[in-house]
Amino acid sequence: MNKLDSAGHSIYFETGLESLANIVESGRYSKIFVFADSNTSELCLPLFREMMNDFHGFDLIETDPGEENKNIDFCIGIWKTLLDFGADRKCLMINLGGGVITDMGGFVASTYKRGIDFINIPTTLLSQVDASVGGKTGIDVDNVKNMVGTFTLPQCVFIETAFLKTLPQRELLSGFAEMIKHGLIADQEYYQNLKNSDYLQVSAPAIYRSVEIKNDVVTEDPHEKGLRKILNFGHTIGHAVETYSLINDAQPLTHGEAIAIGMICEAFLSSTNNTFKAEELEDVTAYISKLYPAYAIKEESFAQLMEFMQSDKKNENGQIMFSLLSGIGKCDYNCRVSEKDILESFAYFNHIGFNP
Amino acid sequence: MNKLDSAGHSIYFETGLESLANIVESGRYSKIFVFADSNTSELCLPLFREMMNDFHGFDLIETDPGEENKNIDFCIGIWKTLLDFGADRKCLMINLGGGVITDMGGFVASTYKRGIDFINIPTTLLSQVDASVGGKTGIDVDNVKNMVGTFTLPQCVFIETAFLKTLPQRELLSGFAEMIKHGLIADQEYYQNLKNSDYLQVSAPAIYRSVEIKNDVVTEDPHEKGLRKILNFGHTIGHAVETYSLINDAQPLTHGEAIAIGMICEAFLSSTNNTFKAEELEDVTAYISKLYPAYAIKEESFAQLMEFMQSDKKNENGQIMFSLLSGIGKCDYNCRVSEKDILESFAYFNHIGFNP
Ligand SMILES: NC(=O)c1ccc[n+]([C@@H]2O[C@H](COP(=O)([O-])OP(=O)(O)OC[C@H]3O[C@@H](n4cnc5c(N)ncnc54)[C@H](O)[C@@H]3O)[C@@H](O)[C@H]2O)c1
Ligand SMILES: NC(=O)c1ccc[n+]([C@@H]2O[C@H](COP(=O)([O-])OP(=O)(O)OC[C@H]3O[C@@H](n4cnc5c(N)ncnc54)[C@H](O)[C@@H]3O)[C@@H](O)[C@H]2O)c1
Ligand SMILES: [Zn+2]
Ligand SMILES: [Zn+2]
Repeated sequence: MNKLDSAGHSIYFETGLESLANIVESGRYSKIFVFADSNTSELCLPLFREMMNDFHGFDLIETDPGEENKNIDFCIGIWKTLLDFGADRKCLMINLGGGVITDMGGFVASTYKRGIDFINIPTTLLSQVDASVGGKTGIDVDNVKNMVGTFTLPQCVFIETAFLKTLPQRELLSGFAEMIKHGLIADQEYYQNLKNSDYLQVSAPAIYRSVEIKNDVVTEDPHEKGLRKILNFGHTIGHAVETYSLINDAQPLTHGEAIAIGMICEAFLSSTNNTFKAEELEDVTAYISKLYPAYAIKEESFAQLMEFMQSDKKNENGQIMFSLLSGIGKCDYNCRVSEKDILESFAYFNHIGFNP
Repeated sequence: MNKLDSAGHSIYFETGLESLANIVESGRYSKIFVFADSNTSELCLPLFREMMNDFHGFDLIETDPGEENKNIDFCIGIWKTLLDFGADRKCLMINLGGGVITDMGGFVASTYKRGIDFINIPTTLLSQVDASVGGKTGIDVDNVKNMVGTFTLPQCVFIETAFLKTLPQRELLSGFAEMIKHGLIADQEYYQNLKNSDYLQVSAPAIYRSVEIKNDVVTEDPHEKGLRKILNFGHTIGHAVETYSLINDAQPLTHGEAIAIGMICEAFLSSTNNTFKAEELEDVTAYISKLYPAYAIKEESFAQLMEFMQSDKKNENGQIMFSLLSGIGKCDYNCRVSEKDILESFAYFNHIGFNP
């Protein structure tokens, strides 16, 4: 259980970065770069160095933290920095950080001189259970999320729970939403286990199982032609709510908080538009609404939420498509839902006593 | 002889864009974009429309012509335009133009929403015989050529000599240098045929043979690990001369003119550092210097040319590597050459009476 073979690369679990030490010492690379944001360079880099036997043979490229810096201007800066540091095609980039760092670092690496090798060390729960598999890299342009990117696999990925110790609780809870999602779409038993666990003590085996579920789905459908869409459960509405919150709320929702809201709404849609049972809906609603902070989907936001959904890049020809549960642990994709039902799911969400 | 199967895609020759008409009419694509520069939109688009049965079902994205516009700022503009036009992942981009358009259009398409389909219709001789094969896309950052790009194959490529009718003579001559290169590195008979032909009347079968040679090489070595380096013959010195000329000459050399100079210098190096015979050197020098305009590699440029070569992205660890002929039609790669010999090759070039 310390290695998972994904299409084209391996994901190492809790191995203390042993194979990474071997790779950097192999002499295969002309130069090694570590890419981090100011938080992970302060909080994760010392641990990284220690695990790598006091490793110093790299140049550090540091950026400001946060989604607002995952953009093309920062990419241009990193490309130029690589050039200034004399990076040729045989250098290696190690991305040490959350999904912002692995997404942007992956994009920069996959395009610098038409592609250099990179390795991801995700340091947030979200990036460990989600961004670690699937080969997606991406950046935002003009605040449009992941408008530009590539499908490029890292050489390998290292998941070490030790990095999570410094992660704020709210970030842990955010990543935990994706784990709940994995249970709901693919593994009822796993979902039950999560319910009986504490997200603050999230375990390596639980992370492993999440990664395994995502990997199984992605391996069957590497280019998002079909099955992979089930990973989108909770995200059609969740993304819209997240975008709206980012623009309008003083304290915007995290990704996972928004997805938690999206999962409740889409579980409701699963019960009205698929075979999801009333008691299953109740179970999911009760669990998620207890775990996540209260929120209200304001009525004056409904129109804009619909618009965000219509322009989502996952939709074709303007038709909004959902991935809906047919039971706990089972999910269908390409489900069409009427606007009326979507609006009802907002009402359902607002009436479960989840709002403040 | 009207279709060549390259790794993963087909190159169609002189088929009147018949299969393209089928593709755009198939309904596989949600939207179709044609990407062109202001020259090709004026000179090639009417012919394109005509060949496609008066086809109008596309949006045109137009840029300014020239290498100076093959950069990241223009890319950002094109990404945004695609978004504004409502381009989803199922749209198709048709790049109609020279290498600047196919390189930049290919990069934009390979990264927009993590990759949309694109088709190349190269309209210069250079882009037909060189940029049409190999899956390289690229753009310049901070005037560093092709600093950023991907290896992504177009769905297919259409080569139509009809487009060459409006191409300035100097551009024809520029592309012709790559054809001479193909003969020199891989096919003696083809080289002899080119010598007996007129570049102003360049024939479809000759273009086909050039593409075939490049395709054979690229297919054997898709990621530039080894053999593909022979395509670099004439380019190590040629690129340096081109860069220098771009900065210093009032009327800079075209790519092909610079490569012609590079081929003479590197043929000389082939005779001093490989088994290339004196009479072969004489033959190549006489042919190329008669065909291309006079030029002098100024002594005050020598140091800078060496520097450009050292920082070329194709070199590793600062060592300059050459691809050198072992005879006409045969080429070796990874040849080390001393700085003294390189300087001598400049002197050789300057003393063949090629200078003004
Ligand atoms: N590629 C994919 O498949 C994929 C999947 C999911 C999400 N994503 C992307 O991931 C991003 C979100 O990921 P994220 O939540 O990890 O974002 P993030 O990288 O912004 O990390 C969140 C915050 O935690 C900090 N941080 C990271 N590791 C830490 C640690 N160990 N201790 C203390 N602080 C730490 C960061 O500096 C940042 O401030 C989004 O841009 C999203 O698009 C990509
Ligand atoms: N991807 C590859 O493998 C590859 C190979 C070789 C070169 N390249 C790239 O290609 C570029 C050079 O190619 P190029 O010489 O075709 O450049 P280009 O696209 O700039 O074309 C040269 C000029 O000819 C004009 N033009 C194009 N077609 C015309 C036509 N039919 N009639 C009249 N005018 C026309 C253009 O507007 C431009 O002004 C460079 O950026 C180089 O890096 C790429
Ligand atoms: Zn998510
Ligand atoms: Zn060339």
